[in-house]
Amino acid sequence: MKRTFCLLSGILLSATLLNAQKVTRWVNPFIGTGAVESSLSGNNYPGATVPFGMVQLSPDTRKAPDWAQASGYDYNDHTIFGFSHTRLSGTGAADLIDILLLPTTDGRNQSNFSHKQESAHPGYYQVLLTDDNINAELTATTHVGLHRYQFPTGADAQVILDIDHSANKGSWGRRIINAQIRIVNSTTVEGYRIITGWAKLRKIYFHIEFSKVILSSAMSDGDRKYKDVSVINGTNLLATLHFNVADGNALISKVALSPVSIENARLNMAKEVPEWNFDAIASEAETKWEKALSKINVKGTDLQKELFYTALYHAMVQPNTMSDVNGEYMAADYTTRHLPEGETHYSTFSLWDTFRAAHPLYNLIQPDREADFVKSMIRQYDYYGYLPIWQLWGQDNYCMIGNHSIPVIVESIMKGIPHLDNEKAYEAIHNSLLTPHPNFPVETWEKYGYMPENRQSQSVSITLEQAYDDWCAAQLAKKLGKNEDYTRFVKRSEFYRNLFNSTSGFFQPKDNKGNWIEPFDPYKYGANGGYPFTEGNAWQYLWYVPQNIPALIQLIGGDKAFAGKLDTFFTTHHQSGELNDNASGFVGQYAHGNEPCHHVAYLYNYVGQPWKAQKYISHIIDSFYNDSSSGYVGNDDCGEMSSWYVFSAMGFYPVNPTSGIYVIGTPVLEESAIKLANGKIFTVKAPRKTADEIYIQSARLNGKTYSKTYITHQDIMNGSTLEFKMGKKPSSWGKSPSDRPLYTAYN
Amino acid sequence: MKRTFCLLSGILLSATLLNAQKVTRWVNPFIGTGAVESSLSGNNYPGATVPFGMVQLSPDTRKAPDWAQASGYDYNDHTIFGFSHTRLSGTGAADLIDILLLPTTDGRNQSNFSHKQESAHPGYYQVLLTDDNINAELTATTHVGLHRYQFPTGADAQVILDIDHSANKGSWGRRIINAQIRIVNSTTVEGYRIITGWAKLRKIYFHIEFSKVILSSAMSDGDRKYKDVSVINGTNLLATLHFNVADGNALISKVALSPVSIENARLNMAKEVPEWNFDAIASEAETKWEKALSKINVKGTDLQKELFYTALYHAMVQPNTMSDVNGEYMAADYTTRHLPEGETHYSTFSLWDTFRAAHPLYNLIQPDREADFVKSMIRQYDYYGYLPIWQLWGQDNYCMIGNHSIPVIVESIMKGIPHLDNEKAYEAIHNSLLTPHPNFPVETWEKYGYMPENRQSQSVSITLEQAYDDWCAAQLAKKLGKNEDYTRFVKRSEFYRNLFNSTSGFFQPKDNKGNWIEPFDPYKYGANGGYPFTEGNAWQYLWYVPQNIPALIQLIGGDKAFAGKLDTFFTTHHQSGELNDNASGFVGQYAHGNEPCHHVAYLYNYVGQPWKAQKYISHIIDSFYNDSSSGYVGNDDCGEMSSWYVFSAMGFYPVNPTSGIYVIGTPVLEESAIKLANGKIFTVKAPRKTADEIYIQSARLNGKTYSKTYITHQDIMNGSTLEFKMGKKPSSWGKSPSDRPLYTAYN
Repeated sequence: MKRTFCLLSGILLSATLLNAQKVTRWVNPFIGTGAVESSLSGNNYPGATVPFGMVQLSPDTRKAPDWAQASGYDYNDHTIFGFSHTRLSGTGAADLIDILLLPTTDGRNQSNFSHKQESAHPGYYQVLLTDDNINAELTATTHVGLHRYQFPTGADAQVILDIDHSANKGSWGRRIINAQIRIVNSTTVEGYRIITGWAKLRKIYFHIEFSKVILSSAMSDGDRKYKDVSVINGTNLLATLHFNVADGNALISKVALSPVSIENARLNMAKEVPEWNFDAIASEAETKWEKALSKINVKGTDLQKELFYTALYHAMVQPNTMSDVNGEYMAADYTTRHLPEGETHYSTFSLWDTFRAAHPLYNLIQPDREADFVKSMIRQYDYYGYLPIWQLWGQDNYCMIGNHSIPVIVESIMKGIPHLDNEKAYEAIHNSLLTPHPNFPVETWEKYGYMPENRQSQSVSITLEQAYDDWCAAQLAKKLGKNEDYTRFVKRSEFYRNLFNSTSGFFQPKDNKGNWIEPFDPYKYGANGGYPFTEGNAWQYLWYVPQNIPALIQLIGGDKAFAGKLDTFFTTHHQSGELNDNASGFVGQYAHGNEPCHHVAYLYNYVGQPWKAQKYISHIIDSFYNDSSSGYVGNDDCGEMSSWYVFSAMGFYPVNPTSGIYVIGTPVLEESAIKLANGKIFTVKAPRKTADEIYIQSARLNGKTYSKTYITHQDIMNGSTLEFKMGKKPSSWGKSPSDRPLYTAYN
Repeated sequence: MKRTFCLLSGILLSATLLNAQKVTRWVNPFIGTGAVESSLSGNNYPGATVPFGMVQLSPDTRKAPDWAQASGYDYNDHTIFGFSHTRLSGTGAADLIDILLLPTTDGRNQSNFSHKQESAHPGYYQVLLTDDNINAELTATTHVGLHRYQFPTGADAQVILDIDHSANKGSWGRRIINAQIRIVNSTTVEGYRIITGWAKLRKIYFHIEFSKVILSSAMSDGDRKYKDVSVINGTNLLATLHFNVADGNALISKVALSPVSIENARLNMAKEVPEWNFDAIASEAETKWEKALSKINVKGTDLQKELFYTALYHAMVQPNTMSDVNGEYMAADYTTRHLPEGETHYSTFSLWDTFRAAHPLYNLIQPDREADFVKSMIRQYDYYGYLPIWQLWGQDNYCMIGNHSIPVIVESIMKGIPHLDNEKAYEAIHNSLLTPHPNFPVETWEKYGYMPENRQSQSVSITLEQAYDDWCAAQLAKKLGKNEDYTRFVKRSEFYRNLFNSTSGFFQPKDNKGNWIEPFDPYKYGANGGYPFTEGNAWQYLWYVPQNIPALIQLIGGDKAFAGKLDTFFTTHHQSGELNDNASGFVGQYAHGNEPCHHVAYLYNYVGQPWKAQKYISHIIDSFYNDSSSGYVGNDDCGEMSSWYVFSAMGFYPVNPTSGIYVIGTPVLEESAIKLANGKIFTVKAPRKTADEIYIQSARLNGKTYSKTYITHQDIMNGSTLEFKMGKKPSSWGKSPSDRPLYTAYN
């Protein structure tokens, strides 16, 4: 499955020379950018961005990216259509892909390229456009993309500005509503486009400055073509700008974006990139990444460090800044609003994915940003009446199921993230749970005590995931003394029981009369509607009671039955009908390529078989993460696949992120040290003599023997040191019932 | 063609009792609302609005109005679907139609009604919904619609709030992008909808208050249905609200709109309708109309007064206020902007129609508003780079041809409309004329000296109309001392000559090689593209050189040839192929149902045959305006057909609005008196002993014998009195060459 190629060596060579001490050198932005043979791609992109930036400036190798190449780039392609400024990382659906620039010498709107003449590191991307022999370099600040194009001597230097280019117009009713390109003066171009798509309505204003004078221009709106006009309005706009590059210097373009206004795009540039020093900006970008990535310092093999820091990098390319430098943003009611001083508005919340491990990771290494993420989610509540499901460009696209802003917010409050208004957050959670919205008919939920499939499709998956969200809300209700609400939500958090069929041993769909819906096939996959299971099957959803694994064990018949069922799960290769596209990375029925299974290997700890958790987690890490262009075994899903890796490679994972408990897996890194916001450092040490020492033999927490198969958030925040002795054989470590993970750390 | 019905008598009865002195009593809002037999409809509506208001609150008798019932109402229908708050008056295409309310007692979403139980006067509409026996009354302020529903005793009083209802979603790619209904408290509902359609992007925010408590509610988004929820987001939203009306009092609903935000909708209501006095608001609305309509006081028959004041009313239901009471508006770049103190932002500029007579009328009776209209047009220039073609909801839909903001703005400056910035206005005009945009490829224009049909369709119509716009720009250039520009634009204003085929005696299309395109058929109609003529034929466009009729006369071969050609025009009934839908109201080839011919009858004055002008104008007035529901012989086109009537009934018409010259036709009113903003009154007297005294025998201006067939704007502004002696036979009045209309009053 793994193709040998030279990414790592190329990266290492340049990185070693320049930045021997930096962890950014371990990031390989090409990981996840293209399928290898029959594998899936992470749907990542190799371009330039800063942590949590608005701009993701990257090459587009697809004219109209859609599902499979949602980021706009596929490592298997050989043609670049230009460099556009926004995109999603790792999603299964495409959107954004705004404001494309392409340098050319003959007006052609694409060029071949070769990976041999392409390079990237955090905040920087470079490629030789071989058709015209133009070297293109990209870097970025939060709101500004910088392009540096070195044209061949004597060339007719042109830049195509294509603001029609977008994700596939055949999806989501995508359509440009109106757009403008205006040549403001001999070095400045401005404009906007208003577009509807996966994000219902986006306004993208841009302000572009060039380091050289525009000699002449041609603009078009589809068939309407004009030479040297100052402004064009329409829907399919493109400009070709000619420059004098006779001095041999590169042409630099600075492209500032704003979701609010052209004036704000100008302000964003004035604040972030007033000068023309491309190298300084690229260096700043790398410094920002260095700061963000070095929150965790690890020791391990070069490959381990490459995979770890690339995963950590992918986890932090979103959520994305959505406010301008002056604090203005487009609110969820399509008005322009102003933030309180010092706050930033963020979006790109792929919550069905990211509540599991990405937000727990942000809570550890980006607590201030996590506070802004939570506030940004609550801002949606202010205008929608409920919290985000899947929020893109500040609006909900209702993708997937559940109300997984709730675990994110509750986790953040429980973990003491600063600057949050607990009462306001609770109001948002409470009202989200009592206000029906797509895939959440609350009165049906409370009336039946489950989702009947004939009332609400994806009923089993929703029942399981919603029960978890209700549990999270109950914990906050309890903390805030809302006892009546606590009782209501705790009751709802138990609704998963009503779909457990003790005869079959699975969660199964019922109709509104309470009858099991037959026939039932635990191997059969659903997608996103029309079937009781979401992007998975009954086997995969069997394990989704993270709020109360002991209760799930009891339902399934006790420790032995549960462990046996886990064994069957990881070893049964049967398949019924078509797989869902998102199902991949199989270990029996376990599918690491999608999120519902991500916690399952850790569940062995709850029945006294931690060595099996270690075995499967080790297998998953080894099998499903690599440094090829494929990289991941499925979509990275806005950094969720990456965040699983970050936690698991360090040796622990938030099975229930809201509980304050992290369950121990098998650390593959020799050492990991998390620099916490409180100034303390949490360290995990797990030296292995050989790579096959995957089993924990013993552990010490702060020097004391430690046999529990979990740690608490407080252990981490105390700056503890957790040391493991690893071995090739399973040991008896962690097998005692008293070693099993706690229900919650907060009782 | 005229069906006898009781509108007038019904109106007069109530009006006479209440408002014996008011001119509003002469307005019949049902005129123009429905075809009679094979006639066309004016596409007007009978509902409640105030002069130039944002709200047009009127019954919708169509579920999804489109071309033929663009206003949402057809007098021939028997079913009302509810009352929505915005619409267009007299257009050929539908849009707006926002926020529909329908009272019901059984949840049905429509009701029968009868014209016998329906009434309307300016600012007020009433109908009995016969299915449920609910009396519904409507009134409005600029931003707020008021509904008063009297339910039957003991009824289950319900109001359906339908924010999915719109113009036909099959046209203009119309689609609701996002929408919300929120029940804020027991008497308040708010929300918005974002919609794309003929206007590219509209945001309509609403704030609704009810005089009674909402007992219960049901909301739906298509198939998604919920009871008693506080908020719903989606695209196809509807709410059913139940009220307790046991006290027997009517339910009043106040609906405030804003194009900017819900907060602004609240402000609009707080400013305009803080209380619950429906009758007071209806009375205020009527007072506003009385003030606007009584700018012209006329004497004549009751029918003449009914037609005149209804026409004057229809001329002033648009352009529409687009800014909120706090001065905020959505600018043409989709940002929210703030107006200078004291200004109002307007839109609905159907300029291909309204530059002819509607704006000249506003210049006389609404000069302050005309100043705001001009400023509003210039605001589009600020964001588009050129002035409006057809502006709706603050954005251009590029409907029709020409750059007819230019005559409007130049006319206003020439006539001394206050508060205009001449240099800024000139900049907007200049740049509009040098910046290509849809239907105006300026480099083609200047390169060829005409539009070649194989480069720009509708080439002959555009060439003629654009030449006029260039002439207007030249006049302003001259006034402002821009001599180089003057030369350039005057040259362009002569380009019509390049398409005159002296062999055929018609303006004919050429290709880019300069060859006449054959075959040529002067009777064949074009529509809106794909043919050299726009909504007309070569006969109708032959006359469009308003800037220089003497030159046109020379082209055609002198006075005699010109007069002969006019005679042929008005008497030849030949037809080739299909008529354009907009062609109707024929007198030979003359078609009063559309605008290109509107000035033609007046042209007889230019060749010494004023009696023929009088004859045909009299015929047009008599034949094509009536008090049936049809009313007009074609679409009223945002008051343009009405404005022709207002001028022509008074006895003069702005053949070239920018020239300061009004050409005399045949006054049908006994007396008309225009109250001017300078405090003076311009009076036309034309007593007739019998209706067939259509010919002017002699005239006096300020008591002095007057034989000229025109007056100047200065004559009007001086508060002159123009008296006519009328007779049954043509006279020699105005026949002398020296009596012919001047080229311009400003030289």
